[in-house]
Amino acid sequence: MATDIRDVIMIGAGPSALAASVYTTREDIDTVLYEKAVVGGMAAITDKVDNYPGFPEGIEGMRLAGQLQAQAERFGAQIELGEVSEIRDEGDHKVVVVDGQDVKAKAVLIATGSDYKKTGVPGEAENFGRGVHYCATCDGAFYRDKKLAVIGGGNSALQETIFLTRFASHIDLLVRSTISASDVLEKELQKYVDEGKVTVHLGTSTQEIIASDGKITSVQVNDNGDEKTIDVDGVFVFVGLLPNTGFLKDSAIELDEVGLIKTDTMLQTSMKGVYASGDVRSGATLQIASAVGEGATAALNIREYLDGLNHHVGNDAEPQAT
Amino acid sequence: MATDIRDVIMIGAGPSALAASVYTTREDIDTVLYEKAVVGGMAAITDKVDNYPGFPEGIEGMRLAGQLQAQAERFGAQIELGEVSEIRDEGDHKVVVVDGQDVKAKAVLIATGSDYKKTGVPGEAENFGRGVHYCATCDGAFYRDKKLAVIGGGNSALQETIFLTRFASHIDLLVRSTISASDVLEKELQKYVDEGKVTVHLGTSTQEIIASDGKITSVQVNDNGDEKTIDVDGVFVFVGLLPNTGFLKDSAIELDEVGLIKTDTMLQTSMKGVYASGDVRSGATLQIASAVGEGATAALNIREYLDGLNHHVGNDAEPQAT
Repeated sequence: MATDIRDVIMIGAGPSALAASVYTTREDIDTVLYEKAVVGGMAAITDKVDNYPGFPEGIEGMRLAGQLQAQAERFGAQIELGEVSEIRDEGDHKVVVVDGQDVKAKAVLIATGSDYKKTGVPGEAENFGRGVHYCATCDGAFYRDKKLAVIGGGNSALQETIFLTRFASHIDLLVRSTISASDVLEKELQKYVDEGKVTVHLGTSTQEIIASDGKITSVQVNDNGDEKTIDVDGVFVFVGLLPNTGFLKDSAIELDEVGLIKTDTMLQTSMKGVYASGDVRSGATLQIASAVGEGATAALNIREYLDGLNHHVGNDAEPQAT
Repeated sequence: MATDIRDVIMIGAGPSALAASVYTTREDIDTVLYEKAVVGGMAAITDKVDNYPGFPEGIEGMRLAGQLQAQAERFGAQIELGEVSEIRDEGDHKVVVVDGQDVKAKAVLIATGSDYKKTGVPGEAENFGRGVHYCATCDGAFYRDKKLAVIGGGNSALQETIFLTRFASHIDLLVRSTISASDVLEKELQKYVDEGKVTVHLGTSTQEIIASDGKITSVQVNDNGDEKTIDVDGVFVFVGLLPNTGFLKDSAIELDEVGLIKTDTMLQTSMKGVYASGDVRSGATLQIASAVGEGATAALNIREYLDGLNHHVGNDAEPQAT
């Protein structure tokens, strides 16, 4: 019975879990990662990563993801395709339900990341990462002295529009109904509107993102009933974040108001022995470097947690009833 | 007057500050780093880094440091040689004293790292990183089925000895006087002593670390008056940590009992606008990945802090008296 309890299950195989598994497996901690979609996560589908430290000229997202995976597998990480639907605490171990099957482990790391909400308009998915972006910190610097459209009207849309004025020559802010953001941000935005750097279009829904020869040329919008074409070099979409925590809804693991996982300073969730790192964690910066760093930190804390378990039950103890 | 206030001063130019400066400079935040010794910090003087995520086959520490530096400089980070002796809070800005000169900045990142305490015996410095190590998580895995000596008798020496039993075939623990560690650790260690995996030598001072052809072959010790030679393949030294925070001793920045800098969840120190990241931070994992991740996180928080300052005083405000 004892042998079918793994040391660590990691949910997700993006940069944070891959980094964590480098640390655990290098120390002979038995580790399995379950990924429901793409190994490498959001990094793998990013065209170019310019700010992951260590690559002076930047690196293609898919290549970075491949290298993280190779490193994890070199030390013995086992990466499997599988969707997790539940985590249960059974005292001396956890049960993770993968594709309907129970899998047991002493500790769990949740690193399922978050997805950006999409508008769903034609041209959005086709140009993802090549003219259509969801992260200003990651991709804003590619648009020095270029024209941008920003889609959204909430706090993050305004904040990121203000941030993008560092780079862009002009920004059209496309707001479907009205702005719903803090007064502080609205006031700050107004400065850029007054300078003529930002134009706000209220009651304006984006109809299509148009590209030619692989480059964005314009967005087609419906501005209070009028069809219009706005020439831009790129589009940033800020309509919300979708943390991949649906499977935790009825669990004992506490989420914040957005659905991100709350952790303590050791990156432990409200369920003992279950940790969270990367973009799924409340307070995440949504940066690969931070996700990787948190993965490493979580791995060291998990090691300490496992050492504690071993100490209490003894290295060769029989499995205990709880 | 306003123009001689920099946006950010970073103290130290190890992996954490270099990563942070990639983030700030890429966003046109004016950034200067002051380093008193080696750019790249401890990473630069590490032989091989096996677990920094992104390099599947590992990377030489000096090469990783060089690449971090090149990336930071590509975006405009200014790295200068200089020793910081003081930080003062002057309200709307901070004053950092570099080689006796006042330099002003709106925000400061302290990333000066920590040094490992040395024993000072012959053979230690000469074989640093090539047989003499200070970090079991970093270098333990290089000693699978090899014989090790561990020098030290405190909590960390015992903890790391226990950890190194995962790899080493046998460990000689060299304790100058007696063991001074928690009961839990002593009990845990005893298990490995009983198994014959660890031999504890009390009252034993290390005299010399002996290498031949660039490889450690033995340590010479004085065991309660008797000179002895113990054959080993490597030596781990755990006699304490020296955080590089001497210059903060009489400052308003709070340190913990070891001398590491206390931070909040935003990595801000007890002085507003002054942040800390990496090995100098209380709670640090002493891992490059974590230091880099914290650098990125600190940079984003500093950006938000600077945005807040700009908002309060206006983008083009005159300098204010405080």
